Amino acid sequence: MAPIRKLLIANRGEIAVRIQRAARDLGIRTVQVVSEADRDMLAARMADEVIVLGPPAASKSYLAVDRLLDALRDSGADAVHPGYGFLSENADFARAVTAMGRIFVGPDADTIERMGDKVNARQAAIAAGVPVVPGSEGRIKGLEQALSLAGEIGYPVMVKAAAGGGGRGIRVSHTAEELAAAIPTAMAEAKAGFGDPGLYLEAYIEKARHIEVQVLGDGEDVIHLHERECSLQRRRQKVWEEAPAAMLDPGLRAELCASAVRLSRAVRYRGAGTMEYLYDPGRQAFYFIEMNTRIQVEHPVTEMITGIDLVREMLLIAGGGRLRMSQEDVRCTGHAIEVRINAEDPARNFMPNPGHVETLRLPEGPGIRFDEGIYAGYRVPPFYDSLLGKLIVAGASREEALDRMAAALDGLEIGPIATTTALHRALVQDPALRAGEVSTRWLETWLEGPGVAAIKTASGT
Amino acid sequence: MAPIRKLLIANRGEIAVRIQRAARDLGIRTVQVVSEADRDMLAARMADEVIVLGPPAASKSYLAVDRLLDALRDSGADAVHPGYGFLSENADFARAVTAMGRIFVGPDADTIERMGDKVNARQAAIAAGVPVVPGSEGRIKGLEQALSLAGEIGYPVMVKAAAGGGGRGIRVSHTAEELAAAIPTAMAEAKAGFGDPGLYLEAYIEKARHIEVQVLGDGEDVIHLHERECSLQRRRQKVWEEAPAAMLDPGLRAELCASAVRLSRAVRYRGAGTMEYLYDPGRQAFYFIEMNTRIQVEHPVTEMITGIDLVREMLLIAGGGRLRMSQEDVRCTGHAIEVRINAEDPARNFMPNPGHVETLRLPEGPGIRFDEGIYAGYRVPPFYDSLLGKLIVAGASREEALDRMAAALDGLEIGPIATTTALHRALVQDPALRAGEVSTRWLETWLEGPGVAAIKTASGT
Repeated sequence: MAPIRKLLIANRGEIAVRIQRAARDLGIRTVQVVSEADRDMLAARMADEVIVLGPPAASKSYLAVDRLLDALRDSGADAVHPGYGFLSENADFARAVTAMGRIFVGPDADTIERMGDKVNARQAAIAAGVPVVPGSEGRIKGLEQALSLAGEIGYPVMVKAAAGGGGRGIRVSHTAEELAAAIPTAMAEAKAGFGDPGLYLEAYIEKARHIEVQVLGDGEDVIHLHERECSLQRRRQKVWEEAPAAMLDPGLRAELCASAVRLSRAVRYRGAGTMEYLYDPGRQAFYFIEMNTRIQVEHPVTEMITGIDLVREMLLIAGGGRLRMSQEDVRCTGHAIEVRINAEDPARNFMPNPGHVETLRLPEGPGIRFDEGIYAGYRVPPFYDSLLGKLIVAGASREEALDRMAAALDGLEIGPIATTTALHRALVQDPALRAGEVSTRWLETWLEGPGVAAIKTASGT
Repeated sequence: MAPIRKLLIANRGEIAVRIQRAARDLGIRTVQVVSEADRDMLAARMADEVIVLGPPAASKSYLAVDRLLDALRDSGADAVHPGYGFLSENADFARAVTAMGRIFVGPDADTIERMGDKVNARQAAIAAGVPVVPGSEGRIKGLEQALSLAGEIGYPVMVKAAAGGGGRGIRVSHTAEELAAAIPTAMAEAKAGFGDPGLYLEAYIEKARHIEVQVLGDGEDVIHLHERECSLQRRRQKVWEEAPAAMLDPGLRAELCASAVRLSRAVRYRGAGTMEYLYDPGRQAFYFIEMNTRIQVEHPVTEMITGIDLVREMLLIAGGGRLRMSQEDVRCTGHAIEVRINAEDPARNFMPNPGHVETLRLPEGPGIRFDEGIYAGYRVPPFYDSLLGKLIVAGASREEALDRMAAALDGLEIGPIATTTALHRALVQDPALRAGEVSTRWLETWLEGPGVAAIKTASGT
């Protein structure tokens, strides 16, 4: 493969800008595709060429494979960067791009397919000796087997209806007695609710934390770029991300990162990818949950602590380059935090709030980075997700990064539309968050409790 | 000493903003002093309190010790950060601040006095075993001594009139024969020109490079934060700075940094300081020239490669804190470059060009930092130096940093006043600069040769 000379960016918003910047640094020409609603977006203003795909609806623009392939053909671009979301993990799209003799910036279609399927990925993890959440691997056969398995796994455990889903029909047991009592009831309920009494049994993770490992591979070798913690989530959307995972014991961190490399090497991974894990503070154990075969929204925190530009590396590797660094070259310095600035009003239950950006002032100075998708005078269209940009800060320590985030948030001004800036101004002052005492359920609980008043206060200033 | 709670910032422009940011990160209240011409400067807008010192002339404002001491008393600030320039290396001012029971953010007055004097500093360096430019340490006694000394030092050497100055009466000899011929002539010329035939003899450094080491001490321990190269200078003003010094052999780098630590420890240095050296590529040797006992304009490149916030550390140490890191904790990752953006027109012999900043667009994104002293709508006053801000970029390698600088300069827009942006756009493309083949005389030669056309082209875009 030859180095990329002309890149089509099959995405929008801040990630399209991010990719434009990496391409520009490398002297690669860019083709920006846009929907009819996005002609004025920042990435379009930065591009060498702009191609309108179709109407605002994503299905007719950013998800319309045929239109994208036409744009690729017409523009003469030799590569496509899919960003995140949209077609970034669509194996058929990757296959079609490759069939045209062009480069898909990411792993090959087979890897996307294999690792994109949760069941397959879990099996690959088990085969590579990477721990997964321990459980019954199918329906439990009866009370005796359940008790024996739970004894192996350790309490607490949960049983859930095999035919259920979305958290329905889950019961948690902290002792054998509780489990013995729970099973008959749960079976009866599953039969009544889903017409099937079958139950799964699994370790129950109290105060789970979301931890993920960034990997980078060239199809031969794979390295890790340390881990991130993204436990602060709302409706399964990450809202605040950090690197490294400050509370993790150094031995466990090393094991975690090594496991991600093992699994990626097993699939001869090429490009940037993320292995997602749950961390169980009670058992002090981590469990693989899934892999994302693309760049992630929160990748900048990793860039801040390693000094490695992930999108640049993706483009170089996709253009036929080998990994330019060994594991020993990857050093982790300081601590970084990213917050997502969305056009949503946190004081009004995160109501989407698109509209005209009249004033924009971005924080500047040491340890501060802003990956923006907007500019003063831009009108945020209502058709897509509400991410306006990401504020990323780094400091020598987590405490320093938190202080800097507080100051940087004060220096951020996006008007007049309401954004999640007020949420982050409240969060950065929260004692529990500052102490690192969070879990994947923490934010939603906080938003129903102390968060209400804290956000109101932060919005008022 | 107690931690600083309220800080008076005795400076202006971008460094005042920089100090505001560090204070804000630490939750320290700020008092900004301004001249009557600076009421609207950015740092004044960020401050908790503003005190007008007096008329625009620096002698009546930023250099007026009495007015500054009055402001310190009236504001109740417990500390003063002097920035660079102005009173930053004025031992009397430091002494007066301390006599008032307030904190001077920097070394104590005696250290400023001792290290601020070039002759004293040179003696301290010799005592600490730090190499200085080898020479006659006084007048040469005759031809025989000169030839013997030159034999020890190695050629080329230069002789200069002891009574001369500013580079007058200098002759370079590359061999003993040349020296033997030069000395009688030089003596006769010195006698004729300065009324004194006395000559000094010194090693002549061809293609000297300016290298400096950042140190940080708490009065007990001192560490180094690696070195910077600042060889690109015009009229002895640095215009482009890098960290680390990429061309330096690793063994020599280690020796250089160790020598700076040795000298700083010998004076029990407290605060941030810089040891400046000349590097002689011919002899592969470095020579101490002077110490700056304050923060330097180019400090951000060091912050980019180490992740350490120097101004924050200065404030913490001044407030009685100990060094928070050991030498082993200081890691050097990647490469950083800073360029100075001045209100000067490089296409018109760097004519100062103050005026109204109507449009301002700062580059954003990974590895990019801008330390600005201006904002859109600001009027640059004509009374002070013309530094508007500094663009700093970092990359995993020097090449990556250069590519990023090129792209970032494209994204920088300050209108309508002419700035040195065009100079840097031309420099970043220059093959010799990219190859690292520069010296302290390189830029001035370039500006008289290929630079003329390159700047014109860059200004046109």
